[in-house]
Amino acid sequence: MKNILEDSNLNTINHSCAHVMAQAVKKLYPNALFWVGPVIDEGFYYDIDLGDITLKDEDLEDIAKEMKKIIKDGKRIVREELTKEEALVKFASDSYKIDLINNMENDIPITCYSQGDFTDLCRGPHAETVKACKHFKLLKHSGAYWKGNMNNKMLQRIYGICFENESDLNEYLEYKEKAKERDHRKLGKDLDLFCFSDLVGPGLPLFTPKGTFLKEELQREVERICRSYGFEKVSNPHLANIKLFEISGHAAKFSEELFHVSSEKGHDMVLKPVLCPHHTQLYASKIRSYRDLPVRYMESEKQYRAELPGAISGLSRVYAITVEDGHIFCRADQIKEEIIKIINIIKDFYGSLGMWGNHWVSLSVRDYNHLDKYIGEQNDWEICENMLEEISDELGLNAKRCEGEAALYGPKLDFMFHDVIGREIQIPTIQLDFATPKRFELNYIDSDGNKKNPVMIHRAILGSYERFMMLLLEHFGGLFPLWLAPVQINIIPVNLNYHEDYAREIYDLLIQNNFRTELDLRNEKLGYKLRESLIKKIPFTIILGQNEVDNKTISYRSHGSEETFTISQEEFIEIMKNKIDNKETSYL
Amino acid sequence: MKNILEDSNLNTINHSCAHVMAQAVKKLYPNALFWVGPVIDEGFYYDIDLGDITLKDEDLEDIAKEMKKIIKDGKRIVREELTKEEALVKFASDSYKIDLINNMENDIPITCYSQGDFTDLCRGPHAETVKACKHFKLLKHSGAYWKGNMNNKMLQRIYGICFENESDLNEYLEYKEKAKERDHRKLGKDLDLFCFSDLVGPGLPLFTPKGTFLKEELQREVERICRSYGFEKVSNPHLANIKLFEISGHAAKFSEELFHVSSEKGHDMVLKPVLCPHHTQLYASKIRSYRDLPVRYMESEKQYRAELPGAISGLSRVYAITVEDGHIFCRADQIKEEIIKIINIIKDFYGSLGMWGNHWVSLSVRDYNHLDKYIGEQNDWEICENMLEEISDELGLNAKRCEGEAALYGPKLDFMFHDVIGREIQIPTIQLDFATPKRFELNYIDSDGNKKNPVMIHRAILGSYERFMMLLLEHFGGLFPLWLAPVQINIIPVNLNYHEDYAREIYDLLIQNNFRTELDLRNEKLGYKLRESLIKKIPFTIILGQNEVDNKTISYRSHGSEETFTISQEEFIEIMKNKIDNKETSYL
Repeated sequence: MKNILEDSNLNTINHSCAHVMAQAVKKLYPNALFWVGPVIDEGFYYDIDLGDITLKDEDLEDIAKEMKKIIKDGKRIVREELTKEEALVKFASDSYKIDLINNMENDIPITCYSQGDFTDLCRGPHAETVKACKHFKLLKHSGAYWKGNMNNKMLQRIYGICFENESDLNEYLEYKEKAKERDHRKLGKDLDLFCFSDLVGPGLPLFTPKGTFLKEELQREVERICRSYGFEKVSNPHLANIKLFEISGHAAKFSEELFHVSSEKGHDMVLKPVLCPHHTQLYASKIRSYRDLPVRYMESEKQYRAELPGAISGLSRVYAITVEDGHIFCRADQIKEEIIKIINIIKDFYGSLGMWGNHWVSLSVRDYNHLDKYIGEQNDWEICENMLEEISDELGLNAKRCEGEAALYGPKLDFMFHDVIGREIQIPTIQLDFATPKRFELNYIDSDGNKKNPVMIHRAILGSYERFMMLLLEHFGGLFPLWLAPVQINIIPVNLNYHEDYAREIYDLLIQNNFRTELDLRNEKLGYKLRESLIKKIPFTIILGQNEVDNKTISYRSHGSEETFTISQEEFIEIMKNKIDNKETSYL
Repeated sequence: MKNILEDSNLNTINHSCAHVMAQAVKKLYPNALFWVGPVIDEGFYYDIDLGDITLKDEDLEDIAKEMKKIIKDGKRIVREELTKEEALVKFASDSYKIDLINNMENDIPITCYSQGDFTDLCRGPHAETVKACKHFKLLKHSGAYWKGNMNNKMLQRIYGICFENESDLNEYLEYKEKAKERDHRKLGKDLDLFCFSDLVGPGLPLFTPKGTFLKEELQREVERICRSYGFEKVSNPHLANIKLFEISGHAAKFSEELFHVSSEKGHDMVLKPVLCPHHTQLYASKIRSYRDLPVRYMESEKQYRAELPGAISGLSRVYAITVEDGHIFCRADQIKEEIIKIINIIKDFYGSLGMWGNHWVSLSVRDYNHLDKYIGEQNDWEICENMLEEISDELGLNAKRCEGEAALYGPKLDFMFHDVIGREIQIPTIQLDFATPKRFELNYIDSDGNKKNPVMIHRAILGSYERFMMLLLEHFGGLFPLWLAPVQINIIPVNLNYHEDYAREIYDLLIQNNFRTELDLRNEKLGYKLRESLIKKIPFTIILGQNEVDNKTISYRSHGSEETFTISQEEFIEIMKNKIDNKETSYL
């Protein structure tokens, strides 16, 4: 799927299409006032003040019709330059534009683009005529607070997308349709993994027993692997004095994303937006010798970011994200060995999900034309970049050198995976950081008796559990590998009058063998129960009738298959155990 | 140890002693102004405005000397009644007293107590003469914000205690000395379990790998037991709209303890002060049938309370407490069976710590003279109180009926344990609640097709991990049962030149057998290392010299013992495994 933002022509025509949409809205709603209409990954949106009107789905159809007329009419898009003073006069009656113009720099000309009778303030560039916007689709609408602030007026936001030809548009719409079936919000409901409550509020998912299991099983797996490479788990509070983040630099960087915490008693704290600074404080709690290093901390804890209310959606964007984070404090001569360990952790973990192999690695280095963008010694950078390249070669990672993609404090190795619907997922990362230990004055006593700053390595394996669960749900379409499936086996007796006892016997047997099993004793028809087992994406469904009762056997189907196998109880248990132990990702 | 608040004579003389202290302070610091001086569990304190002066330890000695003079002088304590107007005139020059008087009711006489030249506003009662305060001790001093609000001026707080005779005072001081050795803040440092950071702030403990292990091992144990009784783990956000707590009643009840969360974007939420309301929302996320009940949720999550900054101390009072909480939603006919299950959980858990047996149970019922204090139907109460009594008899709990100790919404069973230094610890509780499900309109479809409200049972097993870890640390004096000890075995080679290889071999063997083992390879003397093993309260210390190398044996000491045993590797492993599997609480 094409990323609109990364293709300059698509970027331009989507921009123009936003203007065409605005012109159509103005025609249908003459009092409409327009805020901003940016291009995004998947097309564009425009925030519009329609007074007290809240848009409905059918309104979008009318707007699209009007847009088609405008496009058919085929007006040229004309650019005009104004001084700030001229712009303030031209848009004097439009408070939104005045607000925008006032926030622009003084000595730079302001541009307007017009098509027919419609003029909009805009930096451009635009297509030559509105005809370029022919292959568009209005996707959805929502409310959006002006400037993203919940105390401001709610505007109407309309999303759309535009392609160069009909076949690209259709390909996109097909992709969206396919993605919809796998939408984690739908699957989360089908599998009963999480829910939302109006009283608790948006952006705050509540995890049911099954969702909690899934999260904890992922956590157990990643922690088990990390522990075998020497990581130790720690636990830190969610609150801190803002001083902590002023030193780390996050208070300045994330000012708008910070949640402030106060009380009637005068408390004044913040919720942590990242975990790293707390880990520096644990390191600093003791005197460290060169022999004590590396110190490896891991933690799976909530961190909080005040996202835009309009951006909140399902598990993909929430206020509280549970992050699996880890940091290594080591000597410079230990960096290489530690990085190899982290790569092995990534390989083990993604391997257990059947995803290792379908990926590429970015060696994210400096932008050599703008070395002033980074902190730290150039010499250190040289060493680190070479070290990462060397490791990449040694381990056959075949990392692609991506200039300008380094972090502020050092180069990175980023791992990009592909999911089954073709999306690129960038999660695991290994980052070298010389700056943070210096900012927090961390040190160790070296073998020569002198104090030295340790190196800090940031590492992420699965990132945030919420987002990872969303990606896994959509990647597997809810059909998790057996070791991870919240419910592994569903037992259905054919007739409750005759087969319930045997079903209970098998249920007890499977529970004793630690299989996550459900027993469906509801007074419903077999077909209904089988369909539900399918919808809930349960890997194996056992059907027990008279034949099974008489022979003490088990008949089962794997998910999606119509074929039924009948085997002994012992064989069934062995098959299941093998699939789990081998972390098989297929049921068949 | 006597509780000062619960003994009327001790209460009176501590009250008078606070006045004697104030008189002494006024003599030494003529500009001193006095805020309030209440009696507390362990004596009394007085909050005093000394301008810019911050008290030092030696100042307390001077104050105590002055108090002794006052007591020896033996003035009578004289009571005087004033109208509010008279009081406002009398204390016109003292803004603190004026603030107090203004907040008093209009038509009730205000009382003052005087001794010699010192007069203080006070509700009384007081001793007849200051002589009654002879057996006192000033304990400590600290800063305390006026009215507990961090935006107000910092006052000086002095703590003291007074007894009827010298032997009671000495008994108390001895108890305090004994408790000091077991102080969890000292042990927490010795065992490297947790720390604090000035940058993170007070009341926010950071748990090291060992402290995190201890917390998680307790969690695994309580969850393992609860799971075997049908509890399922869930996971909920820490944030919520305040509406959630308005419905539950907590917003009104905990208004001053609520942390409010805001952002530059206009977010307005609160941090949850309790877990129950979130669990009601998980219950409400699905349609429930009578066959689906009981639903049993458990969760170990942080909750937040804006405690008074002055009350913050070690792990005993923190801003974020991790609570092991659980709720059952069931039908009325299931209550009895569920309560029996919870009692078994409490028995299993406290049994694994060797504490079951040294306890008593309170059947906390209504105050029958004030039935209007409670919500719900009297008939329901009748049934529930009888049910709890019946269960107590059936299980031989021998519960003591405590009138007036019930919760707002129903009767409780409270379990009181005794720790080794004689303190009573009240943690496990089982509470019946008819009100909350009604407030949140929870229901299930009964067998007759009608909607009914479920009953909610609140249960706590270990309460908050922070407080429980503090209590366990002080109860065991840091010597945890082997299954719970963060480090179980310490290995010390006698001579690094000759015995290091064998020490490493034994270390690997023990790690393979899942024992939490440390290997001390520092260049220090054997005696030094043995002392450190003792201070760190490591249950078993292995000492490996030439004899052990030659014979492939293990020599070990259990904590506190001077006796060394030499056995085979296999025998050592078997002894350890048995002690862990049997959850033995003694090392010998």
